[in-house]
Amino acid sequence: MIAKPYLLFLADAKDRNSCKTAYGIAYWRPADCVGELRYPEATTDCGTPAMTVREAAQRGAKTMVLGLAPSGGALAPRWVETILEALDAGLDIASGMHVRLDSVAAIAERAQRLGRKLHDVRMPPPGIKVGTGRRRPGKRLLTVGTDCNAGKMFTSLALEKELRARGKAATFRATGQTGILIAGSGIAVDAVIADFISGATEQLAPANAPEHWDLVEGQGSLFHPSYAGVSLGLLHGAQPDLMVMCHDPTRKTMRGDVDHALPGIRECIALNEHCAKLTNPAAKVIGISVNTSRLADGEAKALLARLAQEHGMPAVDPVRTGVAPLVDAILASGR
Amino acid sequence: MIAKPYLLFLADAKDRNSCKTAYGIAYWRPADCVGELRYPEATTDCGTPAMTVREAAQRGAKTMVLGLAPSGGALAPRWVETILEALDAGLDIASGMHVRLDSVAAIAERAQRLGRKLHDVRMPPPGIKVGTGRRRPGKRLLTVGTDCNAGKMFTSLALEKELRARGKAATFRATGQTGILIAGSGIAVDAVIADFISGATEQLAPANAPEHWDLVEGQGSLFHPSYAGVSLGLLHGAQPDLMVMCHDPTRKTMRGDVDHALPGIRECIALNEHCAKLTNPAAKVIGISVNTSRLADGEAKALLARLAQEHGMPAVDPVRTGVAPLVDAILASGR
Repeated sequence: MIAKPYLLFLADAKDRNSCKTAYGIAYWRPADCVGELRYPEATTDCGTPAMTVREAAQRGAKTMVLGLAPSGGALAPRWVETILEALDAGLDIASGMHVRLDSVAAIAERAQRLGRKLHDVRMPPPGIKVGTGRRRPGKRLLTVGTDCNAGKMFTSLALEKELRARGKAATFRATGQTGILIAGSGIAVDAVIADFISGATEQLAPANAPEHWDLVEGQGSLFHPSYAGVSLGLLHGAQPDLMVMCHDPTRKTMRGDVDHALPGIRECIALNEHCAKLTNPAAKVIGISVNTSRLADGEAKALLARLAQEHGMPAVDPVRTGVAPLVDAILASGR
Repeated sequence: MIAKPYLLFLADAKDRNSCKTAYGIAYWRPADCVGELRYPEATTDCGTPAMTVREAAQRGAKTMVLGLAPSGGALAPRWVETILEALDAGLDIASGMHVRLDSVAAIAERAQRLGRKLHDVRMPPPGIKVGTGRRRPGKRLLTVGTDCNAGKMFTSLALEKELRARGKAATFRATGQTGILIAGSGIAVDAVIADFISGATEQLAPANAPEHWDLVEGQGSLFHPSYAGVSLGLLHGAQPDLMVMCHDPTRKTMRGDVDHALPGIRECIALNEHCAKLTNPAAKVIGISVNTSRLADGEAKALLARLAQEHGMPAVDPVRTGVAPLVDAILASGR
């Protein structure tokens, strides 16, 4: 568990894309963010109050979050200075970067000496066990996709929010670095040893109260030639009662791979349901979540209407239309 | 690459099961084994000449292979003594054990000082890349299975042998520790980081001459709730032209998992072919390999005949009948 609330570290970010993890945290967990630290050259923000490390500590911040990618991969000396300042001010550090915080000796030593925690959320925790496939109580919904980056995290978080708004017990379960920083906990399933993918997912979304919903963040796609193994282990470990299919209608080929066309939604639903039945015979896709941000409003609504009719299930865009129809379907599913 | 020939280290092995890796090496690569080192209490052997470390070195051994599981997981002091002796005599060490050779300081230091290599074959090599799914030349056959431990390694090696006997260029590609020690190279795909399963397999069985066959050792099963992610990544990375379905007819539930029944062979063929088409649209299962060792001869032959008829493809036991009918099917496949 990463201690909250957070100070978001934006450094000299020039656009929202370069600090999209910090932006995601501010968007989904505004109450968890006391503010953001921007260098003077920064030309974007996350909409939270700008402040120094010391001000953040005074306002109760427990952890400074590095939610952006360093250019060149290594930590700039100036970033290291700010991190050391934050440690001195009493904050832990959490990072979603590839470079490990403790790979910088000064950071490792200072944290050790002051008793602060360094969270590298891309690193799985030790002690993950092999999956068992054994049925466990609690309800689980997994977001799956025709491709990577098709809105699985966003959809899972939107479902959590809407279920809670309707008085249901629901917990977002994060499987990627941005989701883990938003939730304050989770496991980067793509970073575990291959034999433990389903086991990591079982640990992430453990047995729960019979009426409790876990919203498990999916990863990749069964149709992505690079990452399908991760997606299948996640599917088996999540043991989902229900799934939502996430899709980007403007993409023609799989992310980072021009050789492979995107699968059809019908084919992708069929394969996910077929494979999911191994650990949950009742597993079923009950809705479609589409990123229509690149479409005009009329076009987007026509597409959603067409998909809903073709597949006999609600089709939404979490941003444009909200996920209420998906939650209606979840609650009407009898699970 | 592990330098050959080998000295097989059997320690005080009491039965063939406890030294089955060493036995597998002696069975499949007799020419690569100068002999075996047994302590006086050993009550089994691999059929190669017994000898000391020094004798093995004199006869040209390059590597001592630890192909057995230490009881309790740790290396006994006596084993460490023998390993140090082997390093002194000029041999590298290769191990398929969970405990890392360099976790014993004396072994690490001696190897370093003498310039010997320590091969922990469960550890994947550094620098594995994400899979691309890009089509590559060369022919590949992957052994798949209804379950783990269903004869995939044995079948792959038997196919390599029979193809070579017919004058075809063929290479066994090892994906597990025993296979890697037999081949002298390979990658333990279940030990790589989840994101790199298909990439590791692409590296293991790279582009080759158009007429060359890679026989890729499968792992797990798409129907095993613990390991299916590994199996799917391997299937996509192997890009197999052909597959052979391996099966143990005496098993009722998945290995180590009493909750899940073995899948039907037809269902298992269908799912493997469906998923394999993502990276090789022509992928096809062309035969069945059955471990009939627990059946009487008449029963075994009746079963093989029934399976061949039911599925319209040859069904063999590599030990009882040999794999010639599978190789006939491979060569007749037009791939």
